[in-house]
Amino acid sequence: MADQKVLTGHVLRMTESLIKAGVTVAVISPGSRSTPLAYAFAASEQLHTYMQVDERSAAYFALGIAKASCKPVVLLCTSGTAASNYHPAITEAYYARLPLIVITADRPHELRGVGAPQAIDQLNMYGKHVKFSVDLPLAEENDEMDRYLERHIQRAVSVSLTEPMGPIHLNIPLREPLLIDFAQKAPVGSFMESVQGDTALPYEAMEKIRKILSDAPNGLIIAGEMPVGFNKELFWKFAKSLQWPVVADPLSNLRSEVPDDCRELCITHYDALLKSDVFKEKVQAHTVIRFGPQPVSKPLSIFLKNYPPEFFIAVDESPEFRDSLGIVTHHLQVSTNSVMEILVTNQQPDYTRIWSFADSIAEDATRSYEGIPGDEGVIVKKLIECVPDGSDLVSGSSMPIRDMDTFFAKTDKELSLFSNRGANGIDGVVSTAFGIQTARKRPAYLLIGDLSFLHDVNGLIVSRFHKTDLTIIILNNDGGGIFSYLPQATVSNHFEELFGTPTGLTFEHIAAMYDAQYAAIHTVEQFEDEIRKEKTKDVRILEVFTNRPINVQSHRAYWADIVERIEADD
Amino acid sequence: MADQKVLTGHVLRMTESLIKAGVTVAVISPGSRSTPLAYAFAASEQLHTYMQVDERSAAYFALGIAKASCKPVVLLCTSGTAASNYHPAITEAYYARLPLIVITADRPHELRGVGAPQAIDQLNMYGKHVKFSVDLPLAEENDEMDRYLERHIQRAVSVSLTEPMGPIHLNIPLREPLLIDFAQKAPVGSFMESVQGDTALPYEAMEKIRKILSDAPNGLIIAGEMPVGFNKELFWKFAKSLQWPVVADPLSNLRSEVPDDCRELCITHYDALLKSDVFKEKVQAHTVIRFGPQPVSKPLSIFLKNYPPEFFIAVDESPEFRDSLGIVTHHLQVSTNSVMEILVTNQQPDYTRIWSFADSIAEDATRSYEGIPGDEGVIVKKLIECVPDGSDLVSGSSMPIRDMDTFFAKTDKELSLFSNRGANGIDGVVSTAFGIQTARKRPAYLLIGDLSFLHDVNGLIVSRFHKTDLTIIILNNDGGGIFSYLPQATVSNHFEELFGTPTGLTFEHIAAMYDAQYAAIHTVEQFEDEIRKEKTKDVRILEVFTNRPINVQSHRAYWADIVERIEADD
Repeated sequence: MADQKVLTGHVLRMTESLIKAGVTVAVISPGSRSTPLAYAFAASEQLHTYMQVDERSAAYFALGIAKASCKPVVLLCTSGTAASNYHPAITEAYYARLPLIVITADRPHELRGVGAPQAIDQLNMYGKHVKFSVDLPLAEENDEMDRYLERHIQRAVSVSLTEPMGPIHLNIPLREPLLIDFAQKAPVGSFMESVQGDTALPYEAMEKIRKILSDAPNGLIIAGEMPVGFNKELFWKFAKSLQWPVVADPLSNLRSEVPDDCRELCITHYDALLKSDVFKEKVQAHTVIRFGPQPVSKPLSIFLKNYPPEFFIAVDESPEFRDSLGIVTHHLQVSTNSVMEILVTNQQPDYTRIWSFADSIAEDATRSYEGIPGDEGVIVKKLIECVPDGSDLVSGSSMPIRDMDTFFAKTDKELSLFSNRGANGIDGVVSTAFGIQTARKRPAYLLIGDLSFLHDVNGLIVSRFHKTDLTIIILNNDGGGIFSYLPQATVSNHFEELFGTPTGLTFEHIAAMYDAQYAAIHTVEQFEDEIRKEKTKDVRILEVFTNRPINVQSHRAYWADIVERIEADD
Repeated sequence: MADQKVLTGHVLRMTESLIKAGVTVAVISPGSRSTPLAYAFAASEQLHTYMQVDERSAAYFALGIAKASCKPVVLLCTSGTAASNYHPAITEAYYARLPLIVITADRPHELRGVGAPQAIDQLNMYGKHVKFSVDLPLAEENDEMDRYLERHIQRAVSVSLTEPMGPIHLNIPLREPLLIDFAQKAPVGSFMESVQGDTALPYEAMEKIRKILSDAPNGLIIAGEMPVGFNKELFWKFAKSLQWPVVADPLSNLRSEVPDDCRELCITHYDALLKSDVFKEKVQAHTVIRFGPQPVSKPLSIFLKNYPPEFFIAVDESPEFRDSLGIVTHHLQVSTNSVMEILVTNQQPDYTRIWSFADSIAEDATRSYEGIPGDEGVIVKKLIECVPDGSDLVSGSSMPIRDMDTFFAKTDKELSLFSNRGANGIDGVVSTAFGIQTARKRPAYLLIGDLSFLHDVNGLIVSRFHKTDLTIIILNNDGGGIFSYLPQATVSNHFEELFGTPTGLTFEHIAAMYDAQYAAIHTVEQFEDEIRKEKTKDVRILEVFTNRPINVQSHRAYWADIVERIEADD
């Protein structure tokens, strides 16, 4: 039992160190090798533990929690391909800059590379997609080692929490027998705290940026997905002082609860407006300051690329600043909030008014938009209109996030929108949504395409083990809708086979399997009825049947209408 | 259009090079960046292309095809997390030594590391789990480059096919526009052929092994999962000449169609027999020659570890030979077939007879075994009895492969059994089975647990795009059955929460969703009826409801019965 005492002390020390470093949640997938840690996590009163048997979904679930809670989240799995299944979410977490603490149980040295079952080479197995990876030692009774472990786990979590945040990997070898003593008390460590400082602009740089902002004619603020800890109030103060238009990506979460005196500054229909050449000519920007990554809108990117601003300031906490257009002129590697403390007055009534006026025209057009039956845009518009105040929205990649961009108009409701934009995958979205709902503890709504839903259908497993509150709106156009907008759609060869990929699947069976509330929806009215109906189960699935070619046609008509209206007004 | 000509030439050259290197199958997941290659593959008459929208399942499907066909199989996906989803199957392919040719489309350099969508760092992203990884150049009109590409793709496939075989990774950047000219003809390359030699024992080593084999008293042959290209006829000739007992793992595929004059040599119940201490004493081996990895049986491993043979010869085509027990004394790094050409006579009638006699006693016990209602072993026994001659069997990891080991008795039917034993994951099993069926083009039967089925439920998507013929027998004991056999089961704290993980899910809904034939089965008789019934759909799901505690109890009674019988006989 001496061994058991040492092993128990070892895993309790690791557990305590994780908790001291700020971890409050662990997502566990069942397995044998990870038993001692799973026991220690489950027995701890300071950790919430969640189970998910599919490790790919588990990792995206943890990612959702990290995204919504801004806190480090632990993942735990056994050795072997279980660990490989974490890779997609780790990749997303790396590019989305989220603090995942990935723990893979491993065989001890004598069982590595010798053909033992479930033994793969786990050292550095996530390559460059984690910020830090370490192979911890086996349990031993050794005071030096205790001090090392306690501090090293803190260091690892600190790396994860340092901007740009990101996933880290602890590989933990454990030797049989794997049982621990539940009566044993956690050891008292000596390390107390690690504090991560904020990064702020040096004085000279601050003055330089202040000057650029105050001198600029035709200045534009671009707000992409905002990093964890972003202060909305501070942002609007900054924008109000400048009086510049704010091109607000739906993931900036600046489209909801816009302060009254900033309402005109908040531009939400730029994606449609910037399809007009006339309009683009008129709104060329001299100076742009961008927070977060480049927004999802392609017309916005083309506009900026075709009319590169003289100064393009990107506020990006990473040295690997995001500039796929090659137009950034100044990169400020600091926390977003610190830049917003620059309060500069720069009135530019004409330029701002052009934007505001056009945006209000587009807003009118959107308000009256009804779509051709089979269209998806109108569903998204109705969704934003119908969700209750104080809800969270999660959007799939591909078309849903683009429709959110187009149809999420300014609202007085308090709504937050989330999406996986690190690597823009269509995978893991259902799990991410469950994770977000779990962290936020209020009703959430997921907008997702049929292929993306199918890809992570196993995300639903988590609802078998834990209380959830999610409405899933599936836009079922039977295949890959986004390809209908791409040049591939103009070539008939192999189109449906390679890109359309219609599975012919519908999801009422999945709803039945997971005991979810379900409705098959064929009209906008029906959608409105259903979304307003009482939710009676943890999971509600609203499957909206749409049509790929009609969807494209309807969107094109909507854009043409807006372009026509603003150009007519010219 | 000059660009299009160059791009078309580029992807046609790559496609032709893959075909010349022996590729006949490509498994494609839809995506935009991979468009030019997807077009070229789909347009080629020499490539069979298969679609699967979930990349994790796609990779396991390709792995199944590679496993059953012994040929290199191409995987193609777009950039981003699509590529990360391949990692689990790549890990398995690396340890199972299977030739997967993994192709990930990538952004060109100017879109890497700049925050472009779906751009992740794909260079060497599979780390040590591929044998080779290369980032190919962009399309250009350049004769030097053409010659390089043609030969480099051949080199990559050659690396994959060199023993020990394994996955390789081609990262292929492609620049927009991504359309190709379907009328353009494939370029004629100058490279003709690459031949991989066999590795055979040097003369001196051959003589030394011959002497060990001919001098050994109490010699034992152990046959694990046999490598690709294994010659069964040659094997039995080798065994017959030695007259040694053959401990035949079910994955050796030596349990079916045993030649009459080798029937007594073929030992299939060693897992049960070696639970008897009395029997172990009697059958201590002096010399063991093992082909393939160590068999799945734990009692066999314990027996060998407790009574280490004086000589333990492992025939293993890899320098990283498999020896988790630390008992191998001689490692022959050569092709399996080359060793079997050693024909040595070494009669040891007594030793062989002890094994044969005990095995026949265990065979009697198995024949009369009826199990307690709720047991899984009897289902596996019936499955082997009932499947038609000329079928393929695929087994899940965890309990199914152990039950196959226990209850797959010698049969005159021509049956082949497959399983993923590289990393022994419970993931990707449904897709692997579809891949095996696709390659073998005859009816296949998958035996799988409920969690493993659920993990890869998306494996079924492939049946929406392609003709299949698979019967899936799900042993639904509502959770992780294997943990009931482990020490964790003796500790009540958190057992169901962390290990049992009952989802409460049943799979008739999945059957309905995928238009599969379905039966819920509660008795052995009903199972027998159903499995003999006509299969009317591409996919048939037989969900057998079993009981975790009763299953353990029934197995323990079976093993006790055999131990009692052979010890009584002493």
